[in-house]
Amino acid sequence: MKLIVAKSAGVCFGVKRAMDIAREAAKKYPKDLYTLGPLIHNPQAVEFLDQLGVKVKNRIEHIPRGTVIFRSHGVSLRDLMKAREKRLRIIDATCPIVKRAQHYAKYLHRHGYDLLIVGDAQHPEVEAIRSYIPEGVDVVEDVEASQRLGPWEKLGIIAQTTQSFSLFKEVVAVCLERAKELRVFNTICHATTIRQMEAVEIAKKVDCMIVIGGYNSGNTQRLAAICRDIQPHTYHIETSQELHPKWLAGREKIGLTAGASTPSWIIKEVEVKVRHLKS
Amino acid sequence: MKLIVAKSAGVCFGVKRAMDIAREAAKKYPKDLYTLGPLIHNPQAVEFLDQLGVKVKNRIEHIPRGTVIFRSHGVSLRDLMKAREKRLRIIDATCPIVKRAQHYAKYLHRHGYDLLIVGDAQHPEVEAIRSYIPEGVDVVEDVEASQRLGPWEKLGIIAQTTQSFSLFKEVVAVCLERAKELRVFNTICHATTIRQMEAVEIAKKVDCMIVIGGYNSGNTQRLAAICRDIQPHTYHIETSQELHPKWLAGREKIGLTAGASTPSWIIKEVEVKVRHLKS
Repeated sequence: MKLIVAKSAGVCFGVKRAMDIAREAAKKYPKDLYTLGPLIHNPQAVEFLDQLGVKVKNRIEHIPRGTVIFRSHGVSLRDLMKAREKRLRIIDATCPIVKRAQHYAKYLHRHGYDLLIVGDAQHPEVEAIRSYIPEGVDVVEDVEASQRLGPWEKLGIIAQTTQSFSLFKEVVAVCLERAKELRVFNTICHATTIRQMEAVEIAKKVDCMIVIGGYNSGNTQRLAAICRDIQPHTYHIETSQELHPKWLAGREKIGLTAGASTPSWIIKEVEVKVRHLKS
Repeated sequence: MKLIVAKSAGVCFGVKRAMDIAREAAKKYPKDLYTLGPLIHNPQAVEFLDQLGVKVKNRIEHIPRGTVIFRSHGVSLRDLMKAREKRLRIIDATCPIVKRAQHYAKYLHRHGYDLLIVGDAQHPEVEAIRSYIPEGVDVVEDVEASQRLGPWEKLGIIAQTTQSFSLFKEVVAVCLERAKELRVFNTICHATTIRQMEAVEIAKKVDCMIVIGGYNSGNTQRLAAICRDIQPHTYHIETSQELHPKWLAGREKIGLTAGASTPSWIIKEVEVKVRHLKS
């Protein structure tokens, strides 16, 4: 059996940074410490933080006092204002790459562009970006949706930082049909692109692909979808416990990758279990 | 026999305007009247102007005195300066849509963008646009060429006004792979897009397609190439004299279109000849 583990698998810079910030905060402010929504999209990592005293509250209204950590996906304008109103201590763990996407969204709006975000409208990152723009924002998750929009005099396009680059490219091409001017900032996180490209390469070589990460993690879902397009025997799991021995039966080349919010200890556990099952 | 003549065939606004300007000039300045290069890319129309006293000179150095008409494709910075130096009377017949492309090229350069022009580097329109930008300009005529360029921090893209929109779109998508910011002005002439789209629709319906226009006309060449992709029995001719009876033998549905610089009398002659040959 050959096991290929993606070099790019696992926590990215922004997630690591958010985890470090939260751990640091837990030492400094052991009382009344909250994240607004899960800090990252990995239930196991969030559970680990909970044990350190970092509690998850899904609404700013549910945080009475103390310290709020804004998570890696960013915070909406409304929640930011509320947090200030309530005089909470704010610790901002927004990923700098997400911040950059927010910056370009505001920049484009300020310069008179209609804004199109290529991403998942329900994802907290996109919800946060969108909240800073009072009007004229569309969000599309597929090419078909973008075909129904426009025409525009001036259209600005950005992407959710963990979007698939090929979708981004297709949407840009389609929008050009109905825009006199198009201004595009490539806000896709480079680590995401690298991870997706490496996953594609591995999926081509193996007869079974395992993708590890939170079920609520958009980038992990996309990673699994990209792999499944190439290798139908692709399985998305959160932890090693979910690994089914029958998936691996008769498979001689197995590939392993993980989303941007998957801690290395979880990846290691899966790796060990695969080797054990195939030994 | 059914003959479908494209509604969009023949002279566009910019060509008509240039012809009107030249005719007007011939009345006003009957002596020493020149165009720098052919006014439009149609030898028959240029011959007609010659009879009115409008002479073609291919280099500014060959115009000793009098009046120079800048043609529909525009004039290079060098020739403009030379014409001023020589104190020639200047009549500018540059197509306003070409002027707009020049404007956006300068605008993008002034705002710190590298510039990419999707077009034919040898075409006078592209040569003229390029001449106003001191450095950092690339011209590509196919997707492959664009794949060899970049990376860019800030890339601006425009197109030769008569380019194929689908090529423009493909180049934009490819460049996005290596540009952090992309700013695109769709400088393709709307009449060109309409003409190309109508030609495609007609080519699908007929068993023989005739495209009329100057052999030196880039937009006519592209129109013929687009039709040939769909209907291999596509013939590019300049005048009705070139029409071969054997092309039409056994063909029951014939399509007709013409480039942006093809005078209506030439189209009419071809139409009459086709009807005659098939009667």
